[in-house]
Amino acid sequence: MKFLCDRQSMLEAVNIVQKAVSSKSTLPILEGILISAGDDKIVLTGNDLELSIEYTFNAQIIKAGGVVVNSKIFGDIVRKLPDAPMHIEVSDNNVMNIRCADVDFDIMGMACAEFPKVAEIRREFNITLKDSVLKNMIRQTIYALAVTDTKPILTGSLFEINDSVLTVVSVDGYRVAMRNEVIENTGEHKKVVIPGKTLGELLKIIKDEGQAVKLYLSDKHVLFEFENYVVTSRLIDGEYFNYAGALPKEHKLEVVANVGAFINSIERAALIISSDTAKSPLRINIDAGKATLKCSSQIGKVSDVIPIKSSGDALDIGFNYKYLLDAFRACDCDEVKMTFNSALSPCVICPVEGNAFLYMVLPVRLPA
Amino acid sequence: MKFLCDRQSMLEAVNIVQKAVSSKSTLPILEGILISAGDDKIVLTGNDLELSIEYTFNAQIIKAGGVVVNSKIFGDIVRKLPDAPMHIEVSDNNVMNIRCADVDFDIMGMACAEFPKVAEIRREFNITLKDSVLKNMIRQTIYALAVTDTKPILTGSLFEINDSVLTVVSVDGYRVAMRNEVIENTGEHKKVVIPGKTLGELLKIIKDEGQAVKLYLSDKHVLFEFENYVVTSRLIDGEYFNYAGALPKEHKLEVVANVGAFINSIERAALIISSDTAKSPLRINIDAGKATLKCSSQIGKVSDVIPIKSSGDALDIGFNYKYLLDAFRACDCDEVKMTFNSALSPCVICPVEGNAFLYMVLPVRLPA
Repeated sequence: MKFLCDRQSMLEAVNIVQKAVSSKSTLPILEGILISAGDDKIVLTGNDLELSIEYTFNAQIIKAGGVVVNSKIFGDIVRKLPDAPMHIEVSDNNVMNIRCADVDFDIMGMACAEFPKVAEIRREFNITLKDSVLKNMIRQTIYALAVTDTKPILTGSLFEINDSVLTVVSVDGYRVAMRNEVIENTGEHKKVVIPGKTLGELLKIIKDEGQAVKLYLSDKHVLFEFENYVVTSRLIDGEYFNYAGALPKEHKLEVVANVGAFINSIERAALIISSDTAKSPLRINIDAGKATLKCSSQIGKVSDVIPIKSSGDALDIGFNYKYLLDAFRACDCDEVKMTFNSALSPCVICPVEGNAFLYMVLPVRLPA
Repeated sequence: MKFLCDRQSMLEAVNIVQKAVSSKSTLPILEGILISAGDDKIVLTGNDLELSIEYTFNAQIIKAGGVVVNSKIFGDIVRKLPDAPMHIEVSDNNVMNIRCADVDFDIMGMACAEFPKVAEIRREFNITLKDSVLKNMIRQTIYALAVTDTKPILTGSLFEINDSVLTVVSVDGYRVAMRNEVIENTGEHKKVVIPGKTLGELLKIIKDEGQAVKLYLSDKHVLFEFENYVVTSRLIDGEYFNYAGALPKEHKLEVVANVGAFINSIERAALIISSDTAKSPLRINIDAGKATLKCSSQIGKVSDVIPIKSSGDALDIGFNYKYLLDAFRACDCDEVKMTFNSALSPCVICPVEGNAFLYMVLPVRLPA
């Protein structure tokens, strides 16, 4: 293999495919990036067996071929090279020579025959989204994923397509996060569960430039097609939790509140809680025109008043502050509607208008 | 104690005195900040017994007094408060009430009688420097401090005053870093050794605004007097290493080189070294008009050419790349002069003109 390429393109490619490379593996080949050259194009591939990323860019190919190089070493070298054309040549024994201006590196590579194959997906059923929309839908739901794998299905997010609506849902034992977005009518109903790890890596690489992203779904895999790269992930098998059945159908108290004021107030209350092993609940008293947040622990106590609009009876309710804070932080708007039934039933946070998101948080029982 | 103060002033004071507070101590009082109110002024004090900082600012004192509060908890609260006047009141049982807009905190304090006294220094002999100069002198020498305490004296930097020159020197077993600065003639010769920890904290808090700083020296302590705060540190006892005797008196080869080019080249070579347990030396070949940096390890090899100006014989010399990199990073100028005698004697890096700094690095023996 021998080619001449632009360092900036190689750097962009490496930064993206590295997200699919295991940083520590017992198999050195899984810590590697596959570099293939042919037809005026270079393809870089990272594949950790669950998630793979293939990045394609133009280059001047002198001799086609392929090699696998350690992702960290190759990436660090590309980052530190001067901004000049890169000449890369791989010998028959897989030694890669990299020349760039006055710099000359030789690093050991590995034969590409050992590199795991990327899953082939038949590109049939697909939906198209803007990259910024996909990024927001992931960001606004990923916080509620289950992190333990006692219920593996909950370590992924449900992507549900129903005609012209895409819904993304995350659930752990204590909360639900749901995002809805209108898409082009598909006339179909499909459900897949995408692993949290895949979504986390997508969050890091999606650039938010308003480009179109195509999602292809098959039974076992999802494929995200971006302009220069393709992300393929396995899906999580199984039936997803019936979250719709857990959402309250009605409410007795409705509050309209400022998101920033709630975040600041919860963060202050957390100062009294966080260092305390007993995990004191955050107590919220809702009354006409104001919400009073209170918390006490062996460190001390705090009380804070937030102006709100409310309709319904007064309520005293307790929360794990972390769950409420995560939900408010995911809101991305100035004001939200909060609805309640009682001190023992969940709080729902949603936009004042529309149904772009719905966050449900279970309360904790307050000490008598 | 009861007072009303500006939140921004309190925040600035807390951020600075926290640098002198132990984050973990068996004595809770040492994790605290002493807050004293009297004479229209608040004084915050942090004291970890080696280093103390006292910050003074104006406030409206309603009742004089003092209390010690946990530094982390109080600091986090001040950071999270809304930007409004802070009302602070301490009850007889040391509970501190903090009110700020609609927020109301109560935290447990401690009696101030237990707080360690700050060393009293007779403010006689002093020199005055700009804060930016002091900061640079520390930054450009601190990297060469010894970190192990097999020779405790070398874990501090020598501050030597000789009439109208202040010299700061750090030495470990492998290198010397020296900075000189002209000061107002003192007519005296004094030497003190200031602990590396004190210098590290000063680096973090000095703001580089061109303000004057006064250094007062006594036998056991040094006191740095800034506009709003005073830093007092104990000194390290003992005779400092005779670094002047270790500096080469002459040289056979002189090189003028670009600092940025050397840093980039050493950083690239480090990619081949750093993951390698064998710590391969960085080999530098100096010949007419160019320096060639080479390095090889089981990861691979690298060669890089830097244009230089040189006068003297060609030389092949090896270095621990880290020591050379630290010295170049501390240079703060575009070009430097490097002087050599042989492959087994130290390299000296200094400015092309003047003697503001001198960095000496010992070579390592190259494999035959």
